Amino acid sequence: MSQQIEVGVLGATGMVGQQFIAQLAAHPWFRLTWVGASERSAGQKYRDAASWRLPVAPPADLADLVVQEARPGNGAPDLVFSAMDASVAGEIEEAFARAGHVVVSNSRNHRMAPDVPLLVPEINSDHIALIQTQRAARGWSGALVTNPNCSTVFLAMALAPLRQYGLKSVIVTTLQALSGAGYPGVASLDAVGNVVPFIPGEEAKIESEPKKILGSLERGQVVPHPVVISASTTRVAVVNGHTESIAVQLEQQPSLDQVRHALVSFSGAPQRHNLPSAPSQPIVYLHEENRPQPRLDVDRDGGMTVTVGRLRTCPILGYKFFALGHNTVRGAAGAAVLNAELLMAEGVLASPVARG
Amino acid sequence: MSQQIEVGVLGATGMVGQQFIAQLAAHPWFRLTWVGASERSAGQKYRDAASWRLPVAPPADLADLVVQEARPGNGAPDLVFSAMDASVAGEIEEAFARAGHVVVSNSRNHRMAPDVPLLVPEINSDHIALIQTQRAARGWSGALVTNPNCSTVFLAMALAPLRQYGLKSVIVTTLQALSGAGYPGVASLDAVGNVVPFIPGEEAKIESEPKKILGSLERGQVVPHPVVISASTTRVAVVNGHTESIAVQLEQQPSLDQVRHALVSFSGAPQRHNLPSAPSQPIVYLHEENRPQPRLDVDRDGGMTVTVGRLRTCPILGYKFFALGHNTVRGAAGAAVLNAELLMAEGVLASPVARG
Amino acid sequence: MSQQIEVGVLGATGMVGQQFIAQLAAHPWFRLTWVGASERSAGQKYRDAASWRLPVAPPADLADLVVQEARPGNGAPDLVFSAMDASVAGEIEEAFARAGHVVVSNSRNHRMAPDVPLLVPEINSDHIALIQTQRAARGWSGALVTNPNCSTVFLAMALAPLRQYGLKSVIVTTLQALSGAGYPGVASLDAVGNVVPFIPGEEAKIESEPKKILGSLERGQVVPHPVVISASTTRVAVVNGHTESIAVQLEQQPSLDQVRHALVSFSGAPQRHNLPSAPSQPIVYLHEENRPQPRLDVDRDGGMTVTVGRLRTCPILGYKFFALGHNTVRGAAGAAVLNAELLMAEGVLASPVARG
Amino acid sequence: MSQQIEVGVLGATGMVGQQFIAQLAAHPWFRLTWVGASERSAGQKYRDAASWRLPVAPPADLADLVVQEARPGNGAPDLVFSAMDASVAGEIEEAFARAGHVVVSNSRNHRMAPDVPLLVPEINSDHIALIQTQRAARGWSGALVTNPNCSTVFLAMALAPLRQYGLKSVIVTTLQALSGAGYPGVASLDAVGNVVPFIPGEEAKIESEPKKILGSLERGQVVPHPVVISASTTRVAVVNGHTESIAVQLEQQPSLDQVRHALVSFSGAPQRHNLPSAPSQPIVYLHEENRPQPRLDVDRDGGMTVTVGRLRTCPILGYKFFALGHNTVRGAAGAAVLNAELLMAEGVLASPVARG
Repeated sequence: MSQQIEVGVLGATGMVGQQFIAQLAAHPWFRLTWVGASERSAGQKYRDAASWRLPVAPPADLADLVVQEARPGNGAPDLVFSAMDASVAGEIEEAFARAGHVVVSNSRNHRMAPDVPLLVPEINSDHIALIQTQRAARGWSGALVTNPNCSTVFLAMALAPLRQYGLKSVIVTTLQALSGAGYPGVASLDAVGNVVPFIPGEEAKIESEPKKILGSLERGQVVPHPVVISASTTRVAVVNGHTESIAVQLEQQPSLDQVRHALVSFSGAPQRHNLPSAPSQPIVYLHEENRPQPRLDVDRDGGMTVTVGRLRTCPILGYKFFALGHNTVRGAAGAAVLNAELLMAEGVLASPVARG
Repeated sequence: MSQQIEVGVLGATGMVGQQFIAQLAAHPWFRLTWVGASERSAGQKYRDAASWRLPVAPPADLADLVVQEARPGNGAPDLVFSAMDASVAGEIEEAFARAGHVVVSNSRNHRMAPDVPLLVPEINSDHIALIQTQRAARGWSGALVTNPNCSTVFLAMALAPLRQYGLKSVIVTTLQALSGAGYPGVASLDAVGNVVPFIPGEEAKIESEPKKILGSLERGQVVPHPVVISASTTRVAVVNGHTESIAVQLEQQPSLDQVRHALVSFSGAPQRHNLPSAPSQPIVYLHEENRPQPRLDVDRDGGMTVTVGRLRTCPILGYKFFALGHNTVRGAAGAAVLNAELLMAEGVLASPVARG
Repeated sequence: MSQQIEVGVLGATGMVGQQFIAQLAAHPWFRLTWVGASERSAGQKYRDAASWRLPVAPPADLADLVVQEARPGNGAPDLVFSAMDASVAGEIEEAFARAGHVVVSNSRNHRMAPDVPLLVPEINSDHIALIQTQRAARGWSGALVTNPNCSTVFLAMALAPLRQYGLKSVIVTTLQALSGAGYPGVASLDAVGNVVPFIPGEEAKIESEPKKILGSLERGQVVPHPVVISASTTRVAVVNGHTESIAVQLEQQPSLDQVRHALVSFSGAPQRHNLPSAPSQPIVYLHEENRPQPRLDVDRDGGMTVTVGRLRTCPILGYKFFALGHNTVRGAAGAAVLNAELLMAEGVLASPVARG
Repeated sequence: MSQQIEVGVLGATGMVGQQFIAQLAAHPWFRLTWVGASERSAGQKYRDAASWRLPVAPPADLADLVVQEARPGNGAPDLVFSAMDASVAGEIEEAFARAGHVVVSNSRNHRMAPDVPLLVPEINSDHIALIQTQRAARGWSGALVTNPNCSTVFLAMALAPLRQYGLKSVIVTTLQALSGAGYPGVASLDAVGNVVPFIPGEEAKIESEPKKILGSLERGQVVPHPVVISASTTRVAVVNGHTESIAVQLEQQPSLDQVRHALVSFSGAPQRHNLPSAPSQPIVYLHEENRPQPRLDVDRDGGMTVTVGRLRTCPILGYKFFALGHNTVRGAAGAAVLNAELLMAEGVLASPVARG
């Protein structure tokens, strides 16, 4: 235990914060010792400040932790995860990075900033080099890295292995889970027996973020991938798990078998470093004709795997398939924790343990 | 009442048959006097033969009607609706048409036969001229007309007004309701909190049927429309109402306002003839950013309207929007009843009433 | 139309207010000409002030109606329905009654006041005599009548026919629909695939309100019925329709057939007066072993009927059965409209029309 | 691994059989080496014979196991679990017990036989002495033990700690999950947005089985507990987890605190023996006013705990509360596995390992 490094969570009382806490509960490298929230919650014990809403109980020792105000200088450890609402995340995350903290954020505020890595570690672990640019430009001693919007993660994961064939265009329709909207989030009358064909801001994120993630790093800058994406988003009565119906146009014409092989053999830095949260196989392909399904597939490998199925020919764009991912794990808290593991493995954070 | 014509329903005890019965319950032109089903049910009173599963109670006088075996010569009236399962519909429908009945079918068996009209009356009422071809080729004194698959109806309705701009290609992902699969149909464990990304046979129908519906009649034959369609289908936990996420490529570049205008001003033979089941406006466009929704929009105009929303620019195909329709009404029983009304208004069936 | 009387709705922009508007849309006696809401909404057109959330569209002429502030003297008609939130209903309703209006309220605030009728017209239409007591005690020229909590209505309806056998005690567990909690109401994460075994304040209402409703009027006062009720309430993923599992102890021992007969033959003032919203048979008994069900039975007779099934022997209390009612119709807006109809039929309000 | 004993599963391809396999996947004492099913499946590899429907994948080595016909003499190990359908379980289980196998069954067929233990190990581990009676009466060298119906388990668990206060009568309404009905089981149209107030045969089981479980063993026979139970059962749209609304009458009048203490301090043979599947605390009481809930509480302690909440005074029977349990774990496969562990710990089966 003494080999673990201490970490904090900004926005710890909210729904995303709780997911971070669940994700960190038995982490081999990280030990949660600090929780930050708004002024209103500061000073209370965590158990009193937070209305816990996850099926897994919060760690026993967390309950008595006193919530700190979310600003630097309250004993926050070097590494802090940010689960803050976008309305406040911008300034607070900057303040922490300026004060020397490494901030690993799930918030959307800085994702598209040119000097902030937007990481999916299997795809673009080299983008952490942006931290040099960031520090130089902003004069920060700390750093700020981000993970994408949940729907973006699964789409980017499914597209990355196809870059070798020349990604041209993508049309995607999402069927997104309720947990993505937090708590209370979506009203039950909008969810039960219904579909809502709109999620505020979501389509713009899905159309822009993957271009940065799939982009190449050239002279300290990310050159966005030229792929064009068109997204339509819906909310469905699923608790966890975003399903995506994806059609893709490629420059080359690989066979369906070649595409399948590209997907299942895809692997990257997390697997190379054998990171604690890394799935052994980032993309699993199911051959059954009615998969992936949220109920059966969302928790594969602790929710860190993207499951793909129904790859077939699209008479218009060439290829179409379905992808599924766990929106609050691989699409949020698990993504951020994997980012932090990557930073340690790559030496951005001093690693407390020897890893095999 | 004496002015009504008598009609029958083939496959009356099943789920689709029940929907026909509900649709005909208070019909001003048609009076249901004959119900046909399999040998197993024949001879029983309808109330004993059918396990009624709709919220509206069956008509009181129907309950005592004796179920006949589904073959010509059992007192079946001239006009019969077919709600039979595809496993038996083929031969039985042919037998009835050969014996002089006008068969208005919801079954898939004959939809794509070159001499069988596949009707969406607002779009291709002129296709009833195929009946001449059909009678000549088959030597039938009766006739057989069909309505499309449920998802096809809503897609074809939304595309028809855009033919003027040159329909090139369409990518559609459907979120389909449970009632489309009949009873018991989809297992509850596959539906509650889940999405199933597959519906057997559905994508092929959606990709082919609209080409025939939107096609033009030339010298007694339908020349299919050249539009290319790519479909992905999913089943979601909705009782009634298929939602479709549609992207369309056109040859011309109308403005979004022009497209919207084309949709809401779309109208055809049912409106011209003022048919009893015809919606006054076949396509309603909603400007709210989160519509259409099954819970709020599926029953508009008795379920005969297609509701469209969220029209916006698609960076790949040009246009994208959502459409919604009631799958067991406009997509099945209501579609067939509207077809029968069209046949009467166009003189294929002798009309018992004067219509204004 | 000139024979209709004008009515208003207090709290017209909220969810319950919308249900009142839907209920009044095609009413033969009442014409909605006035809508009142909070200061914040006052002055706006109804279409701008309200976020309409019901499947049926609001009446066209309502959309342009200007919302008035909810206080007497803004042109409110003599008869006003109250759909106000309990946090404000108390004082405002009193102000209207004091100013001479007849207030027909769905709010809970005054239900248990000794001089306020708590009406289920089939059961206790004679309780409107309390209005005399009320006017004498409070010096009001108007009047205030209330309808019960939704779950109470269905329970009281099912118990009323059994009073003849001596009601002793009742244990009830409810499975309540989401629409009862308004909008946004229950969070979807609490509803989808879940049961919440608690509804704030609900059990106390169910345990007390029926005693008043079933009570007898003696010398201008209601003597509560001595029945003892024990309630447990749950929220389930149903849109409309509360299901109740009811066990009853009676002083006498009628046969199950006698109990069934008492239920189905139950009738009262609404049927006698042939009120527009009155169901022809207030309680329908279904003999199928798996009924009543919300999906199949909630809309019976426009949602004004209570459906009962599965009557059987309880080895502890003697009798048990299930009852179902539409919570926003018979349990709220429809109940209030029926109350107003009763007041007209009984001469408390001057009737504009001759009724057969 | 060599210390594990080999076990088989009868009815291994069905839904309950799959739950057994999942429950045994990483068991420290038992190794699944034999799967039996109907003649139709016999001879096929398990992967081909079974349509796997659980979220967790089946063990890799199971997939290649060849399914045997479910009769003695096919290499079945000494200990076999029975997940067979009640239509065939009766004779086959008897044949195995006669042939010397210890049969641990989840099927209902022999539960109420006087010489067959109906076990909830925390409550009546002493009932395994019935095996002597059974062997004497039937001349079997093996043995047959059973676990109760799912709803019974949770009710019996919640009642057992109250026996000390004199259990007199119980009224229970259940809200049962879909997984209890197997696959395809409940039709989705009966589940989504609905409640079905009936489950075939369920109420009779809940009213009778607890009397045997809570009964005392006297001279080799179980004397049923005199408690009188009245059950009403419903099916709701929950995947896993039966919720029960329970009212209890006791001879004595313990305080609510005493009842709560009795519940949370309840413990029995599984805890004494520290059995692998035993929850450390069989009954957990939650103080939050809206618990237990299936979504949040069903998986506590691997699904082996019963969660209770909302204990309060019932004005009729004295006490009322809600209980929740995992129907396919503590209510089925997990219950049977715990029974087998008990048999080993008590020496009915030779134990392969030393236990602390």
